Amino acid sequence: MAEECYITFDPNKIGVSEGHLVIPKGNNEEPLRLRVVSHNRGDGPRVLITAGSHGNEGEGPIVARRALEWLPSLQRAGRVIVVPALNSSALEGWSRQSPLDGLDLNRIFPGRAAGSISERIADAVVRLLLPLADVVFDLHSNGPKWGGVPASTFYPIADAHLMLRTLRIAESFLLPATMVWDGEDPGMFDSVAVKQGKVFVCGELGAGLITPGSLAIAEAGVRNALIGLGIVDGRAEPPTFLQKKQSQTYRTLSSDYLCSPRRGVFEPRCSVLEHVSEGNVVGVVHPLDLSASGSIEIRSPITAVVCNVRTSMVVECNDRVVVLGRPG
Amino acid sequence: MAEECYITFDPNKIGVSEGHLVIPKGNNEEPLRLRVVSHNRGDGPRVLITAGSHGNEGEGPIVARRALEWLPSLQRAGRVIVVPALNSSALEGWSRQSPLDGLDLNRIFPGRAAGSISERIADAVVRLLLPLADVVFDLHSNGPKWGGVPASTFYPIADAHLMLRTLRIAESFLLPATMVWDGEDPGMFDSVAVKQGKVFVCGELGAGLITPGSLAIAEAGVRNALIGLGIVDGRAEPPTFLQKKQSQTYRTLSSDYLCSPRRGVFEPRCSVLEHVSEGNVVGVVHPLDLSASGSIEIRSPITAVVCNVRTSMVVECNDRVVVLGRPG
Repeated sequence: MAEECYITFDPNKIGVSEGHLVIPKGNNEEPLRLRVVSHNRGDGPRVLITAGSHGNEGEGPIVARRALEWLPSLQRAGRVIVVPALNSSALEGWSRQSPLDGLDLNRIFPGRAAGSISERIADAVVRLLLPLADVVFDLHSNGPKWGGVPASTFYPIADAHLMLRTLRIAESFLLPATMVWDGEDPGMFDSVAVKQGKVFVCGELGAGLITPGSLAIAEAGVRNALIGLGIVDGRAEPPTFLQKKQSQTYRTLSSDYLCSPRRGVFEPRCSVLEHVSEGNVVGVVHPLDLSASGSIEIRSPITAVVCNVRTSMVVECNDRVVVLGRPG
Repeated sequence: MAEECYITFDPNKIGVSEGHLVIPKGNNEEPLRLRVVSHNRGDGPRVLITAGSHGNEGEGPIVARRALEWLPSLQRAGRVIVVPALNSSALEGWSRQSPLDGLDLNRIFPGRAAGSISERIADAVVRLLLPLADVVFDLHSNGPKWGGVPASTFYPIADAHLMLRTLRIAESFLLPATMVWDGEDPGMFDSVAVKQGKVFVCGELGAGLITPGSLAIAEAGVRNALIGLGIVDGRAEPPTFLQKKQSQTYRTLSSDYLCSPRRGVFEPRCSVLEHVSEGNVVGVVHPLDLSASGSIEIRSPITAVVCNVRTSMVVECNDRVVVLGRPG
């Protein structure tokens, strides 16, 4: 490979530095230029905020843009590097996967410098942006196929010190839920960052509709976390969700991801943040032929809180349909 | 064309008759068999309920299925013919268009008997099912790209008698909104049905997330309308939406569909059922490069109520982003 990725902003410049992460596509094509903005007030925590890894998860990119608007006046310490749209082609197509190579950017980390375009984005982020940060906020949302509680999330970490620090920072978003998940898929940005000793928090900021209300919740979460780190001025405050201001930490075991026992049309029978008891019906899977008999009920195996509910119609056998959380 | 479409249920049988609308695909392929159920109690209004014309609008098919469950015990008169999944291949793919021929089923009416599969479905519906009904409820929803108020909707009709009858039946859904729209696209089921003198009401039953709450609203709308027609027993009652039980009729002129002045990322600044005044910012379109300047505000040209707001990210120039309603 003759060409190398590079950055055109100056992370050491005090103040704002705008530029690009430039990623060669090979084959003498024009390189991909991903916009990056660095806000540097010198000493303090070094944060990387990435958004738009999945193109159909809209809250992150809009919140990242809003943060760029208020950082100049509110930041008092540290450095925040923001990439508002990590996967610009997927964003334009409102698709989870990149339309250019069909890959899910958040399942191919740490990427490959000589790979397809998504692999090259992952590689460039890991080699050029990740070393510039101690803390990473990767802004996702549940997207159009899931309902879910706005949450800061992470996977359990073997290093107890890093685990505790990650938990505290995740909780500092003050979102309705902090979720400690199980069952990390291979190739996620999370594990690569954690392996390098970084605090990595994935914001699952919204679900279903993007509204002024959902954007306000998402923005409050990111701002709260930056306030918690001492990077920006202000008072951290839990946003209102479903008429309540509440923050709760949940633990989700692998067995708490409830899956469809068959292919069919999923009908949700539970709502986000609903308390369900062991044995409660949380959903029904109907035959694809909707007027036929043979619907199967899905029951909660435990007493728990509903954190995510599938909302797209047809599910495959073993597709996740409900995610439960155990308050903890 | 050697083969003809046909039905395998008996619409004249008193009681329940289940069967299929069988549609030849040509080329010696197995025909498409769309499930149809007829509930006949003899004299009374004759209703056709179709759902799933667009495969990513989930409320309709689930509500149609639920109606099949309660019709046997609640129906007291008339005939209700239900097609729960008019566009089964699109439903399986959670896509608006049919994945088989790329067509939008509700833009190609009255269809063609020798056309592609979507055209053949439209043709078969018009020739075999439409004549069996005086009133058609076509169950849609706003789908994953729009927020919207659950509504019964129709386009203005030149025949004043049919217009008034359609308005009354649309209002009898008692949904939060009855919308009289402008700007009917060519090829919609609506206009074909109206031309044949039928009452045609399109239910736009949900938006964004499919939840137990959104399904209850949608189901109540259909049941209310059947109660209003004297077909089923029960008491019609407006469902609760956004903590309110309210039903309001709105008129939407062509100029009330607000469009994006450019390609970019749409950020909603208004919410469904919000009252906006002339000049209020209802949305902003940002450059695709989210950190660049040059965002354009979209302002309401009138004092009105927000009925629909776009929720997918990237919009093209002239794409609709906000639909306003004038109470009337």
